[in-house]
Amino acid sequence: MASLRAAARLRPIASRVTPFQAQRNYAAVAAVKTSEPSGEQPFFPDEPAGPTVKTAIPGPQSKKAIEELHKVFDTRSLNMLADYQKSYGNYIADPDGNVLLDVYAQIASIPVGYSNPALHKAALSEQMASALINRPALGNFPSHDWADILKTGILKVAPKGLDQVFTAMAGSDANETAYKAAFMWRRQHERGGAHVEFSEEDITSSMLNQSPGAPQLSILSFKTAFHGRLFGSLSTTRSKPIHKLDIPAFDWPQATFPLLKYPLEEHIQENQKAEQEALADVERLITTHHLPPCAVVIEPIQSEGGDNHASPAFFRGLRTLTKKHNVLLIVDEVQTGVGATGKFWAHEHWGLESPPDMVTFSKKAQTAGYYFGNPELRPNKPYRQFNTWMGDPARALLFRAIIEEIERLDLVNHTAQVGNYLFNEIEKLASKYPGEFMNLRGKGQGTFIAFDSPRRDEFLKKAKSVGVNIGGSGERAVRLRPMLIFQKHHADILLDALEKIVKS
Amino acid sequence: MASLRAAARLRPIASRVTPFQAQRNYAAVAAVKTSEPSGEQPFFPDEPAGPTVKTAIPGPQSKKAIEELHKVFDTRSLNMLADYQKSYGNYIADPDGNVLLDVYAQIASIPVGYSNPALHKAALSEQMASALINRPALGNFPSHDWADILKTGILKVAPKGLDQVFTAMAGSDANETAYKAAFMWRRQHERGGAHVEFSEEDITSSMLNQSPGAPQLSILSFKTAFHGRLFGSLSTTRSKPIHKLDIPAFDWPQATFPLLKYPLEEHIQENQKAEQEALADVERLITTHHLPPCAVVIEPIQSEGGDNHASPAFFRGLRTLTKKHNVLLIVDEVQTGVGATGKFWAHEHWGLESPPDMVTFSKKAQTAGYYFGNPELRPNKPYRQFNTWMGDPARALLFRAIIEEIERLDLVNHTAQVGNYLFNEIEKLASKYPGEFMNLRGKGQGTFIAFDSPRRDEFLKKAKSVGVNIGGSGERAVRLRPMLIFQKHHADILLDALEKIVKS
Repeated sequence: MASLRAAARLRPIASRVTPFQAQRNYAAVAAVKTSEPSGEQPFFPDEPAGPTVKTAIPGPQSKKAIEELHKVFDTRSLNMLADYQKSYGNYIADPDGNVLLDVYAQIASIPVGYSNPALHKAALSEQMASALINRPALGNFPSHDWADILKTGILKVAPKGLDQVFTAMAGSDANETAYKAAFMWRRQHERGGAHVEFSEEDITSSMLNQSPGAPQLSILSFKTAFHGRLFGSLSTTRSKPIHKLDIPAFDWPQATFPLLKYPLEEHIQENQKAEQEALADVERLITTHHLPPCAVVIEPIQSEGGDNHASPAFFRGLRTLTKKHNVLLIVDEVQTGVGATGKFWAHEHWGLESPPDMVTFSKKAQTAGYYFGNPELRPNKPYRQFNTWMGDPARALLFRAIIEEIERLDLVNHTAQVGNYLFNEIEKLASKYPGEFMNLRGKGQGTFIAFDSPRRDEFLKKAKSVGVNIGGSGERAVRLRPMLIFQKHHADILLDALEKIVKS
Repeated sequence: MASLRAAARLRPIASRVTPFQAQRNYAAVAAVKTSEPSGEQPFFPDEPAGPTVKTAIPGPQSKKAIEELHKVFDTRSLNMLADYQKSYGNYIADPDGNVLLDVYAQIASIPVGYSNPALHKAALSEQMASALINRPALGNFPSHDWADILKTGILKVAPKGLDQVFTAMAGSDANETAYKAAFMWRRQHERGGAHVEFSEEDITSSMLNQSPGAPQLSILSFKTAFHGRLFGSLSTTRSKPIHKLDIPAFDWPQATFPLLKYPLEEHIQENQKAEQEALADVERLITTHHLPPCAVVIEPIQSEGGDNHASPAFFRGLRTLTKKHNVLLIVDEVQTGVGATGKFWAHEHWGLESPPDMVTFSKKAQTAGYYFGNPELRPNKPYRQFNTWMGDPARALLFRAIIEEIERLDLVNHTAQVGNYLFNEIEKLASKYPGEFMNLRGKGQGTFIAFDSPRRDEFLKKAKSVGVNIGGSGERAVRLRPMLIFQKHHADILLDALEKIVKS
């Protein structure tokens, strides 16, 4: 098994005493329940054997600190105060000595474990120090080794067919810069090519925020989609009113997203019909909306919106449709990317004949941006796609270290395997407690698994009391977003906790 | 003199051999011209004595590397390829052995020198390593010491009257999140207060990107302003068509910015009139624009737009006007903040009776966000102002180290003093070459100095050949944006270079 071999290779590094291991003290950590790792060797040999719950969460120490924090920082969305120096591997610690198995992982963004020794080494390198303290304006003054950092990092894992990158800071601006590239591409086509100069009218009207310089075009997104919360990205986000209320938005169109019924094998025809109708809706909007869409943006799995899936056939159909109408396809892999679905990029599951035009990334990459391949997506003049920092080389170096760790431990294949195990076991729980685990989804999608709960918020709260940190999505989904170093013995602890929650 | 005392204090730290000093080799650096430091002790004792220009820029090594980089990264806006490991203090190095005095400083964003030893130490700390590798979703899982990091860092330098912060990633999203806070505040007032629930119509229409949920309101900005390049911030940016062409924009209003005539003392009445007319234009737009402005955003000195100044009286008038009409005042200190104008925040020059409602920051802070004081600017419910990362604690730790360095070396006062010296000397050059240094501006504004050049682009190019890296702004301004550790002996090198440029 790949993960076993990988663990053996890991040992010499992870078991040595690194500076932060010396600081950590897990002597007090007692396993709530230790599942025997059944022959599996741990990626983090000195990880806690299981969760420790010492107090209600938040405990007294946390409460005091939260009160202090609230004076200067809005804590109303606070889920749990953490002590990251004490967090390790799959386990998040808090100031009260509680240590939880973390399958939420900072909203799906910690890739290879808290305080990962390999990342720790990268963080303390001279190259990282220089990147941190000598932050360049990348578009103007890139460092002499920036090409190398890109090629051995971000671009090494570029989706097939896409060999270029524009670097950004987080998911929202990654999407917005991709949208900007799409608008420039479309207008360039309308003008007749890259060599055609802007008209006087284009120039003058752009400075007045008026058409044609600021064109009456749109980005098409889907109902219940999430693509970020800045003004352009928020205009394509349709997951919850709380994200959108009181913020001006562009009058851009939203297409129906197919609402699949579960279990899939019992609803084949209905689901096919739903997907065909959704595609027809996309085509209708592309051809008739008063602000013509120049791109369609879609998540491989709608994540914030409730873990909504569609079939590979649907996505292939969308690729065909966008090609047919000369509209770009932007795949937002901010949450699905970097291994969690058992492929490095979730859209690899689709078997596309030609790649998406742009793929955006963030979260587990710990840096952000969009990939593209078509040279026409480079704007025809410099400074059109530009800003001071254009990303952060320090975070790009970290992504490189993450990629090395993923490759060294074969974590994408590992996640596919452990995801299969976890899905099958939850399926068993779902047959045992049919009202509690509804619409189980994510089969064959690594650990990117979710189900609906009739009392979701209570479910998530209860989870902490049995030692697990879990997140939700949409109105009633429980979403599992463990890290890529989540193993079978962690799955067993999680499964045990899930059963405890619904039994209580 | 404060800077002399400070330099003496610095010595024991900066002159020891740190790891990156050991890597640097300045043996080959020969001074083009060394100005005697006239008794002034250097902040960076082992900084080069002056620039070295060995090749045309870019030289052969750089050219080769740029060609390689261009295959994967758009290099058409590349100004100079840098070697940051070899850059030190005020000097930027390149792969060809050229070492330039840098008074552009990564578009005004390097605060306390390349490879600053104190920042280097902070970068290699265990706290930094943990912040880098255990990046939290700050709104959900802040670390137990986040309040302390804020209070000893970002909030320690909060503008007077503003004791809260929302953290962001860069200038653009700092401004956009401030705009979002403004829209939510305005709608809350219209609804009758924080306790009033959203109406069904608000909720439904927001999901359709329609009013009233997505309100028909605006942010008022000024002609030639620059506030960023994402969709909302770009709608308030009015500096150059190249930033705006082909990008859809909100139909938000722009007010006239007073175009002052120089020298100021010879155009007092004209300039007063221009400022009064600009204020009248603001009032007209606030009261009559079809999308009512809920906030006015303004830079203390319009930077990208050409280094355009207005008087303290103008800004006081703007504060009075916005108060009168119950419109928020957002001061965009992304480029002016953190010391360069001889005050920590440029708006301290204005003598305001009540503070701005929000102040945004980025660049020299090396992290970003907006400050506010009024508790009504915290949205009435959690998750309204939220995203996964909400900034970056690693960058917040760096800002803390920057603040400590600024305080230790008294760099704000130092910059006020060296700025006065520099301004006076350029004034002398301007009398000697009146057609070459036009509209000199920034008197009493630290080193935030600019002048217009009849052949600006040529001027900037020529600067490199005489050992200085300088930036431009607007159509014809040469803008000086040295770091806070720029001293009199650097000013002398710069002045000598300026004269060489115009003489050649």
